[in-house]
Amino acid sequence: MTQKKSKGVIAEKKNEIMGSLKTLGTQIYDQLDSGNFPTITMPSRSTENIHYDPDVRQYILGDKSVTRSARNIRHVKPFTQLAWAAMFSNELTFHRKTSTLRDVYYSAQAYNMTFKDQQESNNIITDLETATGRSREDFNIFPEERSAVFGDLTIEYTVPGYEGKTLNLSSHPDGVLIGPALTSSEFASTTANKVIAIEKGGLFTRFIEENVHKKHNAILVLTAGQAPRQTRYFLRRLHDELKIPVYIFTDGDPWGMHIAMVIISGSANAAHLRDLTTPDAVWSGVWASDIVDYKLPTDPLDDVDIKRLHELQRDPRYQGDPMWQREIKMFLKIKRKAEQEAFSRYGLTYIVDEYLPTKLYEKDKKKK
Amino acid sequence: MTQKKSKGVIAEKKNEIMGSLKTLGTQIYDQLDSGNFPTITMPSRSTENIHYDPDVRQYILGDKSVTRSARNIRHVKPFTQLAWAAMFSNELTFHRKTSTLRDVYYSAQAYNMTFKDQQESNNIITDLETATGRSREDFNIFPEERSAVFGDLTIEYTVPGYEGKTLNLSSHPDGVLIGPALTSSEFASTTANKVIAIEKGGLFTRFIEENVHKKHNAILVLTAGQAPRQTRYFLRRLHDELKIPVYIFTDGDPWGMHIAMVIISGSANAAHLRDLTTPDAVWSGVWASDIVDYKLPTDPLDDVDIKRLHELQRDPRYQGDPMWQREIKMFLKIKRKAEQEAFSRYGLTYIVDEYLPTKLYEKDKKKK
Repeated sequence: MTQKKSKGVIAEKKNEIMGSLKTLGTQIYDQLDSGNFPTITMPSRSTENIHYDPDVRQYILGDKSVTRSARNIRHVKPFTQLAWAAMFSNELTFHRKTSTLRDVYYSAQAYNMTFKDQQESNNIITDLETATGRSREDFNIFPEERSAVFGDLTIEYTVPGYEGKTLNLSSHPDGVLIGPALTSSEFASTTANKVIAIEKGGLFTRFIEENVHKKHNAILVLTAGQAPRQTRYFLRRLHDELKIPVYIFTDGDPWGMHIAMVIISGSANAAHLRDLTTPDAVWSGVWASDIVDYKLPTDPLDDVDIKRLHELQRDPRYQGDPMWQREIKMFLKIKRKAEQEAFSRYGLTYIVDEYLPTKLYEKDKKKK
Repeated sequence: MTQKKSKGVIAEKKNEIMGSLKTLGTQIYDQLDSGNFPTITMPSRSTENIHYDPDVRQYILGDKSVTRSARNIRHVKPFTQLAWAAMFSNELTFHRKTSTLRDVYYSAQAYNMTFKDQQESNNIITDLETATGRSREDFNIFPEERSAVFGDLTIEYTVPGYEGKTLNLSSHPDGVLIGPALTSSEFASTTANKVIAIEKGGLFTRFIEENVHKKHNAILVLTAGQAPRQTRYFLRRLHDELKIPVYIFTDGDPWGMHIAMVIISGSANAAHLRDLTTPDAVWSGVWASDIVDYKLPTDPLDDVDIKRLHELQRDPRYQGDPMWQREIKMFLKIKRKAEQEAFSRYGLTYIVDEYLPTKLYEKDKKKK
């Protein structure tokens, strides 16, 4: 077993983040110093400027840009809000405090900064992401949702009070939360040679109990449904920094398939950001063809499922690997779906003893 | 700071759990040996047999009972299903494997045991709970939902592979999951003198960042909305075994109030069970009167909120401490609600620096 090291990534990233805010601020000051009305120019996020890029395998923004100028009376409010958001983000990052989108909305009142509603405040934070090219998590604005991780990876914290302390992520056999402290930690060492992301809590626990992490040298990640952005970022870091493959196991239905796709290729909403996708991650199942091959107990697809499959069929993210179109067609043909727990019909450990190795091996073979 | 110890609780409990299944099985065998059709008698869970008991401060089952007899052709199926569920639970507990309600439903097929649907299988598990007086978590059938904990409590694991290992629950500053391993661990030592349960992930992280656990010697529990059953059981254990008070902080609306109430007095669905309630736990806020006193930013109550408040007004669980009726009336009067994050209008740390100590002190005073 090899030990892998990947350190200093977070320290370097923190400099870049502070730098991106400083650049934005300096730009405004320079314009003021030269006697000009300050303006901020950033890529447009309007629908017609969002394109799928098959090379980077995610949605990106096109050439159109928008400008917010303090000279324009209609721009004064959003310009000021954006400048405030940058200042607040700078405070959060400097004082190393975390917050949520909801906190940002209420915090504005402490500065006599007004937002009409939560949506307006969220939009300004997305403007800040677009203007700086950094995600809001970089500025310590985290989602409410928490997912979890378990496995042999030793992390080194960078958060106040824990600097330099380490934890091996197999210390707690229920798993530990993926929150601000984990996502901002450096990866110190691991013996893992793959990552397995799992949709559901029950199966995550089953995998730990059955020693999947040891048998397959795997770091196990619980997405708890759709993976929160910080978890997608964490998966990308595991893939890039440790240079190990990522496999995703979900329920066998359009929603499970799309949980995998958002980890792989992201969403149109995040077209202005990088680092949230893992294009080489693999959806390992439950495939529609697995439902047939393993004779799994199923439920019928309902109208919403079928409508969703037709949408996914046309979605540019589903045009790459021919597996996607093949499995969508199979779902539409059999008109059935199955949950991960359906494997329990062959005994509780069948999914670990039989299904998982087959799918991991199949994938390995395909990639060679 | 005192060290508190409370060990052996889990070991003793495991004997009781296995004993309860053995008693059920022995009863069936004895009846067969005496040449009788086996029958199982248990309290009825029909609505008219569920009563609120102000002494134990939870719903309990009355004197009515139901019998499942293998003699009665209509009972043969549920009787067999119940016997199978007991056998399956015995296997899970013996082999120390965990599962979910969904797993139980699919596992039945591995034994040629048929359930019409998930609901039928869930009902049989509730029958098993009623017949044995033990909750399904005791038989290693856990919910999907996961919540989290952080603070100075050293636990000693009893799960396979981790027996005798210890972990201090402040090892990971994002918190660790409350799953089967944590709920089945022994409590080894703590310096905490209180528990603070928090509804939302963002605030849980804020409390950790602001060292609430140190400043107030508190174990912090994230309920992540309505607390899953295993979390309610864990809170009760913290209260009973460590003999420390439990405070609950939620959003200031009928739903937050009821999250607290279910931790305190449980639900009608669990009238056949004990150990899932913490009757001495205290709802510390956000109260309707806090919204007024702290001039919090609010949203208007909508029709569903108001309907819910009228329901709670009549609910027997809300008839004890006069605080409940007072706060319900206040909500109905001001017709507004507020989230925990609303305190951010006074700065991100106001809730920790000002509100929390006031509420903890108020409560302490009241209890003296």
